[in-house]
Amino acid sequence: MSVAKLRETVTGVIRGAIDAVLPESAVRDALASFFHTPHTLAPDRTVLVAVGKAAWRMASAAHEALGVDRGCVITKDGHSMGPIGGLEILEAAHPVPEERNVAATKRALSMVEGLSAEDSVLFLVSGGGSALFELPAPGVSLADVADATSRLLASGAGIVEINTLRKHLSSVKGGRFALACAPASVRAVVLSDVLGDRLDSIASGPACPDSTTRADAIAIAKKYKLPENIALALTETPKELHNVETRITGSVSVLCEAARRLLQREGFDVTLLTTTLDCEASAAGSFFAAIAREAVIKRKPAAPTAFIAGGETVVRLKGLKKGAKGGRCQEMALAAALGISGLPDVVFAAAGSDGTDGPTDAAGGVVDGGTANRIMAPTAMLEDNDSYHALESSGDLLITGPTGTNVNDIAILAVA
Amino acid sequence: MSVAKLRETVTGVIRGAIDAVLPESAVRDALASFFHTPHTLAPDRTVLVAVGKAAWRMASAAHEALGVDRGCVITKDGHSMGPIGGLEILEAAHPVPEERNVAATKRALSMVEGLSAEDSVLFLVSGGGSALFELPAPGVSLADVADATSRLLASGAGIVEINTLRKHLSSVKGGRFALACAPASVRAVVLSDVLGDRLDSIASGPACPDSTTRADAIAIAKKYKLPENIALALTETPKELHNVETRITGSVSVLCEAARRLLQREGFDVTLLTTTLDCEASAAGSFFAAIAREAVIKRKPAAPTAFIAGGETVVRLKGLKKGAKGGRCQEMALAAALGISGLPDVVFAAAGSDGTDGPTDAAGGVVDGGTANRIMAPTAMLEDNDSYHALESSGDLLITGPTGTNVNDIAILAVA
Repeated sequence: MSVAKLRETVTGVIRGAIDAVLPESAVRDALASFFHTPHTLAPDRTVLVAVGKAAWRMASAAHEALGVDRGCVITKDGHSMGPIGGLEILEAAHPVPEERNVAATKRALSMVEGLSAEDSVLFLVSGGGSALFELPAPGVSLADVADATSRLLASGAGIVEINTLRKHLSSVKGGRFALACAPASVRAVVLSDVLGDRLDSIASGPACPDSTTRADAIAIAKKYKLPENIALALTETPKELHNVETRITGSVSVLCEAARRLLQREGFDVTLLTTTLDCEASAAGSFFAAIAREAVIKRKPAAPTAFIAGGETVVRLKGLKKGAKGGRCQEMALAAALGISGLPDVVFAAAGSDGTDGPTDAAGGVVDGGTANRIMAPTAMLEDNDSYHALESSGDLLITGPTGTNVNDIAILAVA
Repeated sequence: MSVAKLRETVTGVIRGAIDAVLPESAVRDALASFFHTPHTLAPDRTVLVAVGKAAWRMASAAHEALGVDRGCVITKDGHSMGPIGGLEILEAAHPVPEERNVAATKRALSMVEGLSAEDSVLFLVSGGGSALFELPAPGVSLADVADATSRLLASGAGIVEINTLRKHLSSVKGGRFALACAPASVRAVVLSDVLGDRLDSIASGPACPDSTTRADAIAIAKKYKLPENIALALTETPKELHNVETRITGSVSVLCEAARRLLQREGFDVTLLTTTLDCEASAAGSFFAAIAREAVIKRKPAAPTAFIAGGETVVRLKGLKKGAKGGRCQEMALAAALGISGLPDVVFAAAGSDGTDGPTDAAGGVVDGGTANRIMAPTAMLEDNDSYHALESSGDLLITGPTGTNVNDIAILAVA
């Protein structure tokens, strides 16, 4: 395989892997896994509730795939892109909730009220849902909840204590939304966009059983001497939810697994090294280059090999050169380029799934054995964290534009 | 597998892999590959010539394996450990050659003089051979060669020019020793102890064809205005050697392959990532930890997995804390310990094959999911490059003592 073809394959795989974690694909895949044939679901017996920053795109995909036409979409101001059939589109405030968020949430609750066991709720959750989807428990206001949170923060309470209290001060968080849907069954599609996010933390888990108890919350209210009305308003959350089936989509694992499948389809023998890479970016590039050198020595022309890593590396900024520009993926690619310089049939690429690597217009870089020679002073530019200009000069930037998803970065080494 | 058992397995594999690159094992393996049955070689028709710092140990192993009893061993002062059958043991000066080095080399040449095509020379070469095994070409003395080298260094000549000149000023370097053995066949066993060492550079390649010509050497002598007697003494080196068969042993590849075999024997599914790891040490440890996290998620209890990397990482010294101590393998292990903290059934070990990691008495470290919790302030100690004291406090130093070989480092991640 020529280097040009190999570069094309690797960048194609990266684009394809990112496609697999776009909100639309995530919803389609999840729906397919819920409903093995498209007609299992009766659109007229299904209510759609979508909350979060990606709610519009998720709802639009669900509407197109299933024809669901009843329900509402609660998303951040400016994130609606127009009407979706008969669905109600409600924009709300983020990150600080306002009364219109509460009104939107009440509207969603009214739509799932009085459903029977033959009905379904399709619940689409994405980041930002915690602020966008909120109804304080009876007896407290949004201001009361905000006040309690501030007091806890000021008293040095931990995030676990704060989240515990908030879940027990809400009528939808901590699994209470799914409880409100019963006896209807809830199919939840969760678009995870943070590395290692826990299911119960995404949008504060409206359809996820809660392991904390009202007693825990009362103890926290006492410990931090919260006002009486707070303690009185604390509600219990469900410990089990038998009417909920959940699919987590759009994670860095899905990104990497999609890349693995695409590479295997191209005939590569693939090793998925990790989905939680978090070391220094240029060292990660050097490590990949060392793997490349070994693979080149041992390669069998008939069996191309590839290695994948997902995660988010960190750049050690020296910041001495004015105008220097780069990102963690570009830095990793530039370091790898130095380590594979002169090697035939090797391509390394790293890209942010959001299409934006650092403060640049590039998603990352795609380099080969000739890259270092196409750059005037590659080692010095790496030292200066000037990976953008280095890869720009060699024609090795990987540019996708903003993708509309954000599930960390992917790096691929391919040896043909 | 318990963590204790896993630690035992991994440290056992590291010790076993180092055993495989000791001079004795290296010679035994090479001889086995030369002579498929022990009786192919007629000991009474074989002359042994061993040169270099490991010459005594290599010769001793060859004597034991084959019963060769004729020949000589030229090693560094203090590196002989007693008589070996009928072999002559000659100690010589290193790193600066003296006249007794020349006398020893002449003795070796006299022993291979007048051999027939039915005779064999077993030539055992290790590091230091360039100084220990030397006979200047007719017309020049050791002092002349040293003087020419100094002039070249002072004039800014490159290492390639210096080596070219020296090969053409010697009666044994650049393949001329093998030429002196003809028509006898030469079996050369080369113990490589430097990453990426080229065959013609180990001991200046006495049994290796030379690609540089007498004309090249004359041009260098002219360019740097060397004395007339130097230019006149320059000899031609052989471009081809049909009587030589060579085995390179004791490289970092052999170290890693031995570890792979041992782990496979224990039932592990092994991936040898690289034999040329050269990135920053703590980032390499973090990268391994990221691989470990993935392997733990995907592990199948019946199929333990392992990853191996060989090479030599670099430590980024911050050097702020007085008394801090460590080495690249210990730093890698400490960084890995932070990244695998709390994980079950994971062990990572890194060790220098010479048994000495940095200015410490440890070869490296062996860490598991409990290591970080056994250290008071592991992150701060890593920042301070104080990996020795960190791993000492947790009981995770790997101590072997000096091993008598030096083929870079090995790192092993094992997930049971």
